[in-house]
Order: sequence, then C-alpha cells, then structure tokens
Amino acid sequence: MEILTTVNDLREAIRARRSYFKRIGFVPTMGYLHAGHEALMRKAKEECDLVVVSIFVNPTQFGPAEDLEKYPRDLRRDSDLCERAGVDAIFHPEARDMYPIGSSTWVDVEGLTDIACGASRPGHFRGVCTVCTKLFNIVRPDRAYFGEKDFQQLMVIKRMARDLFMPLAIVGVPTVREPDGLAMSSRNSYLSLRERQAARIVPKTLQLARERVEGGEHNSATIITAIEELVAAQPLVKLQYAVIVDPDTMTSMRTLTHEARLLVAIYVGNTRLIDNCALVPKAVAPPA
Amino acid sequence: MEILTTVNDLREAIRARRSYFKRIGFVPTMGYLHAGHEALMRKAKEECDLVVVSIFVNPTQFGPAEDLEKYPRDLRRDSDLCERAGVDAIFHPEARDMYPIGSSTWVDVEGLTDIACGASRPGHFRGVCTVCTKLFNIVRPDRAYFGEKDFQQLMVIKRMARDLFMPLAIVGVPTVREPDGLAMSSRNSYLSLRERQAARIVPKTLQLARERVEGGEHNSATIITAIEELVAAQPLVKLQYAVIVDPDTMTSMRTLTHEARLLVAIYVGNTRLIDNCALVPKAVAPPA
Repeated sequence: MEILTTVNDLREAIRARRSYFKRIGFVPTMGYLHAGHEALMRKAKEECDLVVVSIFVNPTQFGPAEDLEKYPRDLRRDSDLCERAGVDAIFHPEARDMYPIGSSTWVDVEGLTDIACGASRPGHFRGVCTVCTKLFNIVRPDRAYFGEKDFQQLMVIKRMARDLFMPLAIVGVPTVREPDGLAMSSRNSYLSLRERQAARIVPKTLQLARERVEGGEHNSATIITAIEELVAAQPLVKLQYAVIVDPDTMTSMRTLTHEARLLVAIYVGNTRLIDNCALVPKAVAPPA
Repeated sequence: MEILTTVNDLREAIRARRSYFKRIGFVPTMGYLHAGHEALMRKAKEECDLVVVSIFVNPTQFGPAEDLEKYPRDLRRDSDLCERAGVDAIFHPEARDMYPIGSSTWVDVEGLTDIACGASRPGHFRGVCTVCTKLFNIVRPDRAYFGEKDFQQLMVIKRMARDLFMPLAIVGVPTVREPDGLAMSSRNSYLSLRERQAARIVPKTLQLARERVEGGEHNSATIITAIEELVAAQPLVKLQYAVIVDPDTMTSMRTLTHEARLLVAIYVGNTRLIDNCALVPKAVAPPA
C-alpha cells in the first residue's frame, strides 16, 4: 500500500495501474477510521480491482464555530486499518494543495440541502460537494462509496453525480453500529464515559419512531413530538433537529404516504451526532 | 461524421473509439457556426485524434430578458461546416436531457465573475460553468477549445478546470475577425445593414485603447473616457461596459503596471456585442 500526498503523485500511481479492464473504487474519508469506513473499503474491495482511500479533513465543510481544529487525526492507525482492509493507495493531501491560492470554484446542490444538516450547517454541503468533485477528478474512480449514516450527504452526492453526468457510480453502504446501537462516527471519540452512556438516546429516537410507524402512526408531527419528549427527558443531550423527509427530494413529509427517512441531529454535551433510518408505513395513510 | 443526440449514444460512440493513445479534442458551441468556431475545430484537429463538437443553445446561461428564443439555429449548415472541418462527431442534445427534471446542481466561479459580463448578465457564468462541467463529464476530452472573443469566459473556464482538478487542458484560440475588424459572432446575424456598419465601432474602441497605450498612456480612466466619448458620438450604438482588468484576477486595473485586458460590451441597436484585446504598457507606469 502506498501513501501519496500530492495530486501528481497520486495521479501517476493510479495511471501506472489503470487499464480499461480495471475497476477503480474510491472511499473519501476525513480519517480517524472506524468499522463504518472499514465496511466501505471492504465493499470497494469486493467490487473493484484497485481501491483508493482519501484521508483529508476538508476545511470548507466546517462552519467557523465548528470542530475543524480539534477533529481527531491519526494517520498511523488509519494506514494500519487500510493496509488490513486491502487498500491499494491512501491519498493524504494538504489543504493548500486541494485549495491552492486563488481557488474560487464551488459546486452546489440546491433543494436537497435546504433542510436538516443543510439548514443547521450553512455551507457544509457546498464544501462536501466541492471537495468530492475535486477528489473524483483526481482519482477518476468507477465507483465511490459513502456511508448511509450521513444519509443526506449520500443523497446530495448522488444527485450531484447524476446532474453533472459524472462518469462514476455512487454506492451507499449501510451504517455500522456499536452493540448498543450507536452509529460509528469519528466524533464518538469526543464523548466522555457519561456522554457515551447518554448517546444511546440517539439510536433510541430511531427505534421509537419505527415502533410508532409499526403501530400504524402516519402523522409525522406526532412522531417528531414523541422524539422531542424522549430527548427532553434525558440529561446531557439536546435535540438539534428531527425531520421526516421524502428520501428523493429531502422535503418534509407531513403524512407517511410512502417510505420516508427520519433524520436526527442530537448534541451530547458539546458533541453533535447524527443518525437516520427508513420509516416504512404499514399501509396507505388515511386521507390527511 | 456522426450526429448524436443522447448522452448514452455519444458516450457509446466515444467509448468505441477511445483508447489510451488517442487524444480527444472537444469544441463546445451554441451552433450557428462561423469562422471563429472553424478555427477552434482546426486547432482541435491539429492537436487531437478525435474531434467532438457540441451544438447546444444552453438555456441556463441566458437571462430572462435575453435572446434565448431567437438565438439563431441551423443544424444543416452547422453539420456541413463540421464535416468540412474534419469533425468526427456532433453532440446535439435536447435541454431536457442536459437538465433532467429535478436538476439542481450548479458550478460557480467566484471573483472572476464579479465584473464585465458577470456583472451585466447575472447567472450567465454559472450557466456556462455548469453546462461545460456536464459536457466535459460526458465527452471526457483531453483538450477543450474556447475562443478568446469571450475572454472572461475563457478565464473562468480555465479557473474552474484548475480549481476542480478537471483532467483536461483548456485551450484558448485567437479571435477571428471580419475584414473590417468586427469579431466573428453568431449574434452578428441579428444586425441590419445599417447596424452592421455601425458595429465597426466595436473593434475601433480596442484600436483607440491600443493607440493610447502605445502613446504612453497608463491611466485606465483616461482610456475608458476616450472610449465612452467615441461610442457616444455614434448613432445606433450604446456602450454597456468598458473595463480594463488584470487578466488573471479579472479585477479593475487603475494603472497599467503590466499587461492588462480591455473588455467592452456595446449594444448595436438591440444586439449586444462583446470584444476584448490585450493592452501592453510601453514602459513601467509612473507611481500612481
């Protein structure tokens, strides 16, 4: 496995191995890798001949008050994990190489980004779309892998790739969870022991919603209120948003007429965690 | 020469002929081709093994009050010209294929687009950048050719390609002119005989500026005032803008300390024509 830090070195390494018959898989990450990333790599390894992982804490997707500086980093541990997963090359660029002086081009997906993380983190998806476009143009993969944990991100990247006719497939991979249900996230490392206990509320909100829907509930507001009450009753945690959306358009669904997606963002202490799940109504909803 | 109208047909036609050793040249146009486009094709033919021309009147680069509907179209004539120029394939898509329902992704270049056509045609460069990104991803050329007549567009596309690490070279080709100096443009076809005479003022503004600079003038405001007076003295014409900019940053240059670019937009009747030229100061400017 090679670790490459410049665009030209990476391009050269890929060019040397590229051929018409080889499929290139790409896993863009911000590093501090966990079992969720590992699932992306294993899926890429299964489907592709050459697997490239990028490790880049992308400054443009962080807001001014967010955790860019303290975001966890550990290249040694990450490269061991990649090596074990059979990754062929790690791309680990500097911010000044990804955004050279005078950089002023941005890729925006409208509509899908009006809600949830798009609303609570202004500019976040613009940063994500722009860096992914750059990375896709550098690596030129046939398939790129994203976790469903960041569901809105996955939908936004899929839309971007479709709209711009990017010559690659975007593959979503199911969320990997801890035994108690907490979704794997590099940000879990911020949690104190007490906060880690409190964080169990995040998957519990999803479970509550699924139970309500299985019980025949079709009204989104009723489900959201139940989630708000559940979170409000717990110490250390604060709900940032809970929304039920149409997965294709990312617009709020008032009534569960077809499969919906619940998206939640919850502060546990100062750590912001997100999660999501499908909500499949048992039968057609009654007329609203 | 083939004429292809769907993304898949074009991709298939190119895939069948693509190989590691073949260089693909691409000339994006809005059709109603003239000698300026022909120069782009001939340059592409010289430098590449396969030449693709797109003919697509891109709706997103027109403002609501602009000439999208009446923009001239003549595919028969265009395809004859392409055939003679040795073009291998024409891509002539429908707007609904380039912008399918739900399209909501945009590519923006900031800064360079604050002035000149960026200021007078809000959203224009966003439309240009977005459609070029789509076309580049569909054709996947090694080199794409743009005329210097649209100088700001050429700079914006170069910046976009650099910023997003697009895997192609952007090549600028000098403006082709009529014997009296008027730059070739599809929009020249809008001009009545009287307007065509009056349009000679456009290249005359460039000539005036060059003469002043050759005479030792370093002050942009003095040159712009002379252009304003020249245009104001003529019937049928109206200056929209005349700006002298640094070609790399597209910011106004008050003093000609190094090579600058003059950009003009002039209405001749209802027809808006643009042109530009380099201004090379004779010696270092005196301190401002």
